[in-house]
Amino acid sequence: MMGWRAYAQEHRDRFLSDLVDFLRIPSVSALPEHACDVQRAARWIADRMTAAGIEGAKVMQTGGHPVVYGEWLHATGKPTVMLYGHFDTQPADPIELWTNPPFEPTIVGDRIYARGAVDPKGNMIIPILAVEAMLQGEGALPVNVKFFFEGQEEIGSPEIPEFVRQHKDLLACDFALSSDGGQYSETEGEILIARKGLCGVQIDVQGPKTDVHSGTSGGAVQNPIYALARVLSSMRSPNGKIAIEGFFDSVVPLTDDDRAAIAAVPFDDDEYKKQLGVDELFGEPGYTTLERAWARPTLDLNGVWGGFQGEGSKTVLPAKAGAKITCRLVPNQEPEEIMSLIEAHVAKFTPKGAKATVTRQPGTARPYSIPKNHPANRLAHAVLEEIYGKPPYYVRIGGTIAVTGILLDILGIYTVSFGFGLNDECFHAPDEFFRISSWDRGQLAYCRLFERLGERGLEG
Amino acid sequence: MMGWRAYAQEHRDRFLSDLVDFLRIPSVSALPEHACDVQRAARWIADRMTAAGIEGAKVMQTGGHPVVYGEWLHATGKPTVMLYGHFDTQPADPIELWTNPPFEPTIVGDRIYARGAVDPKGNMIIPILAVEAMLQGEGALPVNVKFFFEGQEEIGSPEIPEFVRQHKDLLACDFALSSDGGQYSETEGEILIARKGLCGVQIDVQGPKTDVHSGTSGGAVQNPIYALARVLSSMRSPNGKIAIEGFFDSVVPLTDDDRAAIAAVPFDDDEYKKQLGVDELFGEPGYTTLERAWARPTLDLNGVWGGFQGEGSKTVLPAKAGAKITCRLVPNQEPEEIMSLIEAHVAKFTPKGAKATVTRQPGTARPYSIPKNHPANRLAHAVLEEIYGKPPYYVRIGGTIAVTGILLDILGIYTVSFGFGLNDECFHAPDEFFRISSWDRGQLAYCRLFERLGERGLEG
Repeated sequence: MMGWRAYAQEHRDRFLSDLVDFLRIPSVSALPEHACDVQRAARWIADRMTAAGIEGAKVMQTGGHPVVYGEWLHATGKPTVMLYGHFDTQPADPIELWTNPPFEPTIVGDRIYARGAVDPKGNMIIPILAVEAMLQGEGALPVNVKFFFEGQEEIGSPEIPEFVRQHKDLLACDFALSSDGGQYSETEGEILIARKGLCGVQIDVQGPKTDVHSGTSGGAVQNPIYALARVLSSMRSPNGKIAIEGFFDSVVPLTDDDRAAIAAVPFDDDEYKKQLGVDELFGEPGYTTLERAWARPTLDLNGVWGGFQGEGSKTVLPAKAGAKITCRLVPNQEPEEIMSLIEAHVAKFTPKGAKATVTRQPGTARPYSIPKNHPANRLAHAVLEEIYGKPPYYVRIGGTIAVTGILLDILGIYTVSFGFGLNDECFHAPDEFFRISSWDRGQLAYCRLFERLGERGLEG
Repeated sequence: MMGWRAYAQEHRDRFLSDLVDFLRIPSVSALPEHACDVQRAARWIADRMTAAGIEGAKVMQTGGHPVVYGEWLHATGKPTVMLYGHFDTQPADPIELWTNPPFEPTIVGDRIYARGAVDPKGNMIIPILAVEAMLQGEGALPVNVKFFFEGQEEIGSPEIPEFVRQHKDLLACDFALSSDGGQYSETEGEILIARKGLCGVQIDVQGPKTDVHSGTSGGAVQNPIYALARVLSSMRSPNGKIAIEGFFDSVVPLTDDDRAAIAAVPFDDDEYKKQLGVDELFGEPGYTTLERAWARPTLDLNGVWGGFQGEGSKTVLPAKAGAKITCRLVPNQEPEEIMSLIEAHVAKFTPKGAKATVTRQPGTARPYSIPKNHPANRLAHAVLEEIYGKPPYYVRIGGTIAVTGILLDILGIYTVSFGFGLNDECFHAPDEFFRISSWDRGQLAYCRLFERLGERGLEG
C-alpha cells in the first residue's frame, strides 16, 4: 500500500473537485424552497462515502431535513469515534453583496469562495477524505468510526433529539469529533471547552388592520413600526446590558479562573475592530470583548421589517411590523425559560394602541461545556500540538451547535470540536470562503488523530 | 343642443369604460420601473381631453414625470379657473392583500376597485367629463378653463415648482379647483381650509462592514437594528408626543376659534376605531383625534428594514438597517428646518458603535391654508349646499398636496379642493375603491359650479 499521506497527495485534485461539486448544492435549511436541495446534498454525501470505502452509508429521514449515516467498524478492540458534521448552510442573502454567485464556487489563490465553504462543507468533507486516504492508502483504519451528518444544524436541529433517541444503539460510541469548528489562527490550534445555547423568537406587531394614509391617520393611531422600535430598544440599556427582567438570574458567574483562562488567549481589540470595520466595539459593561463574545449571554436582532421598503417614498402608516431575535445562552440558562422572559417583556413594553405577538422559533439549544482535561480533549491537544508545533489554546465560542448537548444528554458522550475554519472567513455572511491550506491541514490532523488513538487508546 | 345633464346621462357607460381604461395604467410615480406607465397615462389623458373637445391638449415634460395641459378659453370676460389634478398613484404593495389585482379594475355594485380609483383617477377624470358634457351638450362653457394635471403628486411634486415658474403665463388664472379631495360623507359636503406640509428622510444605520455571525460577534459589537430601534423610539415620548428638539418651536398654536370649528365637525372616535380595526386611538396628549389628524404636526415611520426577513431563522448580526420617515407639517413649520432638526436628533441619539446617515427625500411641501371666506370658497360652498341640501363643513386635512403651496407662492392663486373621495375608500392601501355614485355627483357638481361662476362671477 502507498500509505495515507501519498494517497491524499495523489488524489488531491479529485478531492478538491468533489468539494466544488458539494458546494454547488444550495442546501439552505432555513428556506423551505431549498428543502429538496438539502435532501440532494444528503444523497451526494452518502454516495461519496460509499465511494470512499465507508460501509452502510445511507440517507435516513427524520421528519425534517435528513441525516446521513455510515460506518467502518473492523478495528477490533479499538475505540469507536463518531465523526459529526452538518451539510446544511445559512441562506445566501444579502445576495447582492456577493462578489461571485454563492453557489458557484470560485477558487482564488488559497481560497475557495462559496456559501458553506467554511461553514460547514469544506470542514465536513474532511473526515470522509481522511478515512478514504487511510482505507485506500493503508487498507484499514486503526480505529472504528461512525459518521453522523445532519442537515438541520443552521436551524437548531429540531428533529435531531428524537432521531438520536430512536437510534441510540446505532450511534453508540466513545466520543464524538465535530468538524464544525475552527483553528485559532493559521499557525495555532484551539480546544473548545464551551459553546453557548440558543433560542429565538419572532415578534409581530399589528397596528391598524390595513395600511393607512399617513396624512389622514398619522397622529391619530399608533404606528406599529414605532411600537416595535420601542419594544426592541427596551430590550437593552443604552450601555449595552440586556434589560429583560430575569435574563441573568440563572447565569453562572465567571470565576477568576475562567476570566484568567480567557485573558490568556491572545486577542487584539484593534485588529478585531478592523476586521469588523467598526470604530469601536460595544457590549455589556464590565467584561472584555472575549468574555462578552465567549462567556456572557447575548440578545441579537437578526432582522426587522415593516411598511414600505422600496426605492422612493410612500406616505403610509403601515398595518404591521416585525422582527426576529435570537439569544445565545450560557450555563445555566434554559432556552424555554428565556423565551418566557422575552414574552413577558414584550407584553410589558408594547406601547398603547398596538398589539404584539411573540412566536417561539423551533431549534433551541442548551449551553454546552466539556471538562478541559477530558481524555478526548487530551488526545486532540496532543495531535494539535504536534501539527502546529505548539500547544493549542483553550477557547470558548459564542456559536451554538445543538447536537453537542443532545449527544451528551442522550448518548452520554462528549464532543470534541475538531475543525479548521478561521474567524475571518465570513461565515454566515457574503463572500464566505475557506482556506485550501486549512483543508489540507484538516485531513492531516484527522489521519494523525486516528493513528494516535489506534496506537495509544483514549486514555493514552 | 341636448344640454349637459342629458349628454352626461346618455354617455355614462362610455365615461365609465374610459375610467376603467385609465385605471388599467399602473402610473406609480414612486417606482422607477413604472416611469413609462406614468408617461403612458399622460398620453392617454391628453388624447382623452382632445376627444372631449378641450383645446391644445398636450403632454409637457418636466425632467421628471410629465404634466398634461389643455384649455378652453372662449368665454370672453368670464373668469378663468384652473382644473388641477394628478394622474400618478401610490405603489400597490402589499400586493398580496388585494382581493383583485390592483391594476385590473373590478366593479362590484356601486364600487370600482383599483389602485388609484379614488386617489386620484376617479376624481381626476371628473372635470374632463364635466367639460365634455357642457361643450358637447351646450356647445360652449360658461367660463374659461385651463387643465393642469401632474404625474408626481405622490412623490411630492419635485419638478412642479420649476415647471410652474417657467409657465407662469400659460397657467395664469383666477383660482384653481383641485379634484384631489373629498366629501365629508355621502350626504355631506366639505370645504377644505388647511392642508399639512410634508418632508421626509431616510435613515441608514451601518454596523459591522458585513453581516456577521451572531454567535461569534454578538455581544462584542453594536447591532445596527438595535441602534436604529433606539433612534426611532427616541423620536417620540411614550405618551405620543414627538420628542425631536425644536420640532414644535414654530408651530402656530390652535386658537379657541380653531378648536371650536374642529369640534363642530361631527366625528365619532368609536366609528373611527372600528374603521381602522384598533382597540384604541393614540397620539399627542391634550388634543382630540381630529385636532391631531388635522391640525397638529406628525412624524410617521413609513418603513423599516434590516437583516434577515425570510421565513425561518438566520442567526446573523446584520451590517445595515434603515427606515423611512415622513413628517406632516402645520403653519409655520418649514420642511428644510424640520429635516435639519431630525438630522440633529439622529446624530445625538445614535448609540455608540453604529453610524447613521440621514438622506433628505425630494418632494417637500410647505403647509397650506386658505381663508375660510375666500370668494372661491364661497362659490364652492354655494354649489355644495345646493347639491347636498345642507351647508358643507369647514375641514382640514392631514394629507399633503405640494401644488397648492406652489400655485400660491408662484402664481398668487388659491386652490379650492373640489373632490369626491370618502375616507373609507382605502386610499394608499389595498382594495382601494371609489363610489360610482360619488363620481356621478362629482360631474354634476363641476357642471353646476361652472354654470354658477359663469352667471354670477367670482364675487357673486
